[in-house]
Amino acid sequence: MDAERQRQAYERTHDPARVLALSDGVVAIIITLLVLEIQVPELTEGKTLQGAIEEIRPSFFAFLISFVVVAIAWAGHRDLFAHVRRTDSPLVWLNILYLLPLSIIPFGASLIARYETEPVALRLYGLLLVAVAATRLWIFLYATTRPHLLYESVDARSRRAGLLLIVVPMALYVIAVIVAEVAPRVSWSIYAGVPALYLVAIWRVRHAAPPGSAEADFT
Amino acid sequence: MDAERQRQAYERTHDPARVLALSDGVVAIIITLLVLEIQVPELTEGKTLQGAIEEIRPSFFAFLISFVVVAIAWAGHRDLFAHVRRTDSPLVWLNILYLLPLSIIPFGASLIARYETEPVALRLYGLLLVAVAATRLWIFLYATTRPHLLYESVDARSRRAGLLLIVVPMALYVIAVIVAEVAPRVSWSIYAGVPALYLVAIWRVRHAAPPGSAEADFT
Amino acid sequence: MDAERQRQAYERTHDPARVLALSDGVVAIIITLLVLEIQVPELTEGKTLQGAIEEIRPSFFAFLISFVVVAIAWAGHRDLFAHVRRTDSPLVWLNILYLLPLSIIPFGASLIARYETEPVALRLYGLLLVAVAATRLWIFLYATTRPHLLYESVDARSRRAGLLLIVVPMALYVIAVIVAEVAPRVSWSIYAGVPALYLVAIWRVRHAAPPGSAEADFT
Amino acid sequence: MDAERQRQAYERTHDPARVLALSDGVVAIIITLLVLEIQVPELTEGKTLQGAIEEIRPSFFAFLISFVVVAIAWAGHRDLFAHVRRTDSPLVWLNILYLLPLSIIPFGASLIARYETEPVALRLYGLLLVAVAATRLWIFLYATTRPHLLYESVDARSRRAGLLLIVVPMALYVIAVIVAEVAPRVSWSIYAGVPALYLVAIWRVRHAAPPGSAEADFT
Repeated sequence: MDAERQRQAYERTHDPARVLALSDGVVAIIITLLVLEIQVPELTEGKTLQGAIEEIRPSFFAFLISFVVVAIAWAGHRDLFAHVRRTDSPLVWLNILYLLPLSIIPFGASLIARYETEPVALRLYGLLLVAVAATRLWIFLYATTRPHLLYESVDARSRRAGLLLIVVPMALYVIAVIVAEVAPRVSWSIYAGVPALYLVAIWRVRHAAPPGSAEADFT
Repeated sequence: MDAERQRQAYERTHDPARVLALSDGVVAIIITLLVLEIQVPELTEGKTLQGAIEEIRPSFFAFLISFVVVAIAWAGHRDLFAHVRRTDSPLVWLNILYLLPLSIIPFGASLIARYETEPVALRLYGLLLVAVAATRLWIFLYATTRPHLLYESVDARSRRAGLLLIVVPMALYVIAVIVAEVAPRVSWSIYAGVPALYLVAIWRVRHAAPPGSAEADFT
Repeated sequence: MDAERQRQAYERTHDPARVLALSDGVVAIIITLLVLEIQVPELTEGKTLQGAIEEIRPSFFAFLISFVVVAIAWAGHRDLFAHVRRTDSPLVWLNILYLLPLSIIPFGASLIARYETEPVALRLYGLLLVAVAATRLWIFLYATTRPHLLYESVDARSRRAGLLLIVVPMALYVIAVIVAEVAPRVSWSIYAGVPALYLVAIWRVRHAAPPGSAEADFT
Repeated sequence: MDAERQRQAYERTHDPARVLALSDGVVAIIITLLVLEIQVPELTEGKTLQGAIEEIRPSFFAFLISFVVVAIAWAGHRDLFAHVRRTDSPLVWLNILYLLPLSIIPFGASLIARYETEPVALRLYGLLLVAVAATRLWIFLYATTRPHLLYESVDARSRRAGLLLIVVPMALYVIAVIVAEVAPRVSWSIYAGVPALYLVAIWRVRHAAPPGSAEADFT
């Protein structure tokens, strides 16, 4: 009886529910705050629709890229936590650490919206994306190597696929940071292209996966 | 035993709970951010209540129309997902795609608050509403044609009613975009009138519905 | 079997869960956005702590009053929905209607922060509080007279107490709107005093309530 | 039967679910709003990465300190409410009182971002942190001394550890407020250092705790 009560107390204090509620809330706010970066164009001096769209374009792309980056981060978080049955203190703090660079994304979007071709802006944005990937890598490694926190172990193949989906974009972002100085356009193209590549890659992973594996359910 | 564990893992990774949490969060933030568009009027120079209300009027209407548009989008989302038992990867991404134009609504509201009669502003706002309707149509068609994702199939009659409630407003918004150039007032009136018409239409659908059909529970 | 499935579908489409999620989200955002109204004081010219606090005072009080108004609205919503087992379409829309004036509160707070003694600002803020009370009255009357939506009927005594807790503040706010023109300070004092009175009143209701009645659990 | 229905009604009206939903929402919004304090640097005049980072530095540290303060407040809230089975009216209101100074943190962050070395800014920020600690202390004392609200009593040792983790930082913040006038740098260092010390302290508490005690699960 006492052992049962102790077990219940253990489950209660290790329940991931509020960690998920906080994470979903933070992501919902980030992707909605991003819109504040899109500047309302000046329309009074007889501007055409094309002219207005042209004026919005840089901030709209900064919005769009950042929106997809955050959406991917959320989908990855959801995929990981679908396997997490219990949290422990390090996992809760790693999760908060993961939310930290994510919550700075609106600042980064604002930066590349205003300074689309400035190497410094592009490097700061890239460093932010590297930080998002690095903290995601950390929480992924921590959780997938703690069977007592999981419903069941993640198989080695799915784990490798999950790691590649984090590490490859991270490497591309590192390259974007490095080349920003000499080729800002290339850097910008990497930020625009990686989310699209990611979505294609995850689609291929899913279709190549053996049925019933964790990979088959990657979002 | 193993089959049972595999089934549970399947249900866990296809659980719509977090998709709903994210969507509710995003909608809550959008309808609350809209208020930031209402400009605080200048009251120092002995302005009357009527004068102040007159000054607030354009931004207040832009707020109100956008509030109702987002509320309808949420009610439709809730109606659809009341039938969704499991998500799969395309449904999760279609849901994110649906949240994308919705999260741009505060920008659109800001635009028509400032440029109430500018064709360009009205056309951009209309394009946004068409995008909301189009992504809603896509997710509706995807979900209602995937019985393995639903609690039970949606009957053909309810499905047709659901489609009409998306397609008719969308057609009206397309008209509003087209006529904005020559008749901005007509365009604005369509944006103001469609939400009201929608609420009347859904009320009629509900009362004409056979008991026990999905239509009878449309919000 | 079929009747059972129909019953389950009915419960699913009438589940209040997402209505509560949206409402909690909207309230959380409103009370957090309010802080944006507090202006950062200018501190460079050797200002003292007293001077800075004096500069913040009007916007801080506007923040505080609005914070408590929204908190009371939320606590009342929670008390009401503790009895609601099922929603129907009018209840969902009445709930959205209730969220509408609430979501305009940050605008009202901004108004009385900037124009503390302007009759027009005080009247607009008062009208907003009347609208919050009126929509709360409507949803309260709708829900408590629909036994099929409730876990069990609300007893007449608790219902009367609940009504008084809505109608009395509403009447005081109407008075505040009327007197704002000739006595703005009185109007302001009503806005500051009603939330405090409300908390005292609800405490007395709770302690005078027969055990087991709904009143005994008013928040 | 009737007693059973009364018991269910009691559990429903004392359910902490919505209190947690509101709290998680408020915290999610606060930590996401904080980013709005980070000013986008001017990059046009050929600024280097170092120059831009230097310009961001004060607002970034204000962001970071505030982010960790709010994260700690949330983790403490989660730890406390893991033991709370039922809320009553005072607990709901104490929780709202706890959210009040927390929701002012973005204002405080904005203040120390702009006036990093101004004693008045540092004192206001410190008073805010003292208020967060004081309301946390109050809710902690209230909940842990009400066994009928808890799953099971919190043992004396864990309670003492929990109290120390609130009271010691609070005392340090009081010192920071006092010394801000003569030694603003010391005051700032206390704000920067306490969160770090807290994380070390809680890690030590956890490792020194007897297995199965509440302390062992402190986050």
